[in-house]
Amino acid sequence: MKKSNKFAVGVDLGGTYIKFGLVSSDGKIVSKSFLESKAETGPDAVIKQIKKGVSAIIEQSNVKINGIGIGAPGVISVKKGTVENPPNLPGWGKVHLGKIIQKEFDIDTHVENDANAAAIGEMIFGAGKKLNSFVMITLGTGVGGGIIFDRKLFRGETGAAGEIGHLSIDFNGAKCNCGSVGCIEAYSGNNYIIHDVLRDYESQKSSLVFKLIENNLDLLTPKVISQAAEQNDNYAINVINNLGTRIGYAMASVANLLDLTTIIVGGGVSGFGTRLLEAIENGMRERVLQSLKPRVKVISAKLSNDAGIQGASSLVFYKS
Amino acid sequence: MKKSNKFAVGVDLGGTYIKFGLVSSDGKIVSKSFLESKAETGPDAVIKQIKKGVSAIIEQSNVKINGIGIGAPGVISVKKGTVENPPNLPGWGKVHLGKIIQKEFDIDTHVENDANAAAIGEMIFGAGKKLNSFVMITLGTGVGGGIIFDRKLFRGETGAAGEIGHLSIDFNGAKCNCGSVGCIEAYSGNNYIIHDVLRDYESQKSSLVFKLIENNLDLLTPKVISQAAEQNDNYAINVINNLGTRIGYAMASVANLLDLTTIIVGGGVSGFGTRLLEAIENGMRERVLQSLKPRVKVISAKLSNDAGIQGASSLVFYKS
Repeated sequence: MKKSNKFAVGVDLGGTYIKFGLVSSDGKIVSKSFLESKAETGPDAVIKQIKKGVSAIIEQSNVKINGIGIGAPGVISVKKGTVENPPNLPGWGKVHLGKIIQKEFDIDTHVENDANAAAIGEMIFGAGKKLNSFVMITLGTGVGGGIIFDRKLFRGETGAAGEIGHLSIDFNGAKCNCGSVGCIEAYSGNNYIIHDVLRDYESQKSSLVFKLIENNLDLLTPKVISQAAEQNDNYAINVINNLGTRIGYAMASVANLLDLTTIIVGGGVSGFGTRLLEAIENGMRERVLQSLKPRVKVISAKLSNDAGIQGASSLVFYKS
Repeated sequence: MKKSNKFAVGVDLGGTYIKFGLVSSDGKIVSKSFLESKAETGPDAVIKQIKKGVSAIIEQSNVKINGIGIGAPGVISVKKGTVENPPNLPGWGKVHLGKIIQKEFDIDTHVENDANAAAIGEMIFGAGKKLNSFVMITLGTGVGGGIIFDRKLFRGETGAAGEIGHLSIDFNGAKCNCGSVGCIEAYSGNNYIIHDVLRDYESQKSSLVFKLIENNLDLLTPKVISQAAEQNDNYAINVINNLGTRIGYAMASVANLLDLTTIIVGGGVSGFGTRLLEAIENGMRERVLQSLKPRVKVISAKLSNDAGIQGASSLVFYKS
């Protein structure tokens, strides 16, 4: 670790766990921990957990802390440090989380939407370190994203920009939980993938996907599909290719709209690996405007397991 | 006209005509003219026409000219003032149009993509005058657009951002001239609208749309459809409603992606009027994320016939 390093505490606030880390300005995790969110008991209990976790990280460290970064779900006002109606955190309404934590520790505190924080983290520490502009798509239970242009996060009018998962690729297509139709999340969110594969069970019984779980359909996860594909199972490969192609089609629309052609793919489903990235790139290049085709580039995110902590801490090192 | 007004020459460079205007800083057209582009004879002839037209405007005016703005098709470098491979202007390759015109008249010259210029024009002179951010969609033979965020044009990596027409709403949908599938242009570009209506001829023969043109299908234009709708022809109303709904679906995706919820609709097809605007707004509100619904707003562009000239001249008054 360089002597010139600065340090931040990153807090990844989730509905089940809160993750904490001491992160250096080159993105290394010096120490980390986690606590239960206790979300069901309301904001005061959650805030208590945050304070407890941050406090422990600070006490264990023997370096100067330059700031605290918090990645939170919901609508965030970066200026005010407020968190509003975060899904999975019942009873929050609007909480001045930034001020509360800043006051507690007397350390500069930055709050940002977790998807935005992931994009900033990738820019400051990860695959976007040397990129001027890119679009980040995070594949998981939900499908989120962030738009980085000229090394600034594009936040839109209220900081909610980057909802790539709710770009529709088929106005007559699959129903999405958000109430719309054909959203890319309705094809590539974890639960939707599982749902679609289960639907194929009868016709694809011989696939390794179902053999690996001995036809116990409850055990089906994206990881199983990934394993089957690695062993050259045709059905699993098709699932991944179709998934990637559709994401690629969506990204072609994004590229046409924004003239941004570098895509960073993160999140759990990106465990589908190179195959998925290639399918996304091929789908995107197939559909994007002629003039943009040569610039299309789809790469993997660098931050993985600790992306939430790193993304949150990167807020401290990001000059917006 | 206010005494404090400044003046710009706006040049709207098209494949058939070049339009010229002297425009005041409050957007009023003081004088205007047009010349044939002579596109088929190559760039030198076209540039000669531009010089001729600008020269005439300047000679007729008795005010100080603050700058010349040129809206041109193709890929533009705003910094260098270059125009690259403009469609409908054969043989151009890359032309340093800005420098050439600036040198000729010794007046600051700004060059911008015509769709971008239209959005800037709407911001400086039109419906976006008091808006901080909006998305402009221009419906015509092609469907273009521009993204204004915080009173700045979002240009993307090469200035090509805003190709809203090539956002796909159906990855299995109608073929688009761009090579992709389901682009909103493939539903709402003039020729596509006409094509779709002609396809309905047999089943909709009794519609006023076809009566107005006495079944002479060559005479079918968006204007005819508009006239039939004004006379409450059900089929024509349906055409406009379907069109607007689909555009609205596309704009829902744009809003989810960018957290921008005010849409300005311009271009010829916007002659479909309030009915179209309402259908766009309804479609958009139906499909946009819950949290954005209350902010959705679809309004008509203010600049119309002279939008090209006004957009071009607005470049002189726009501080990017």
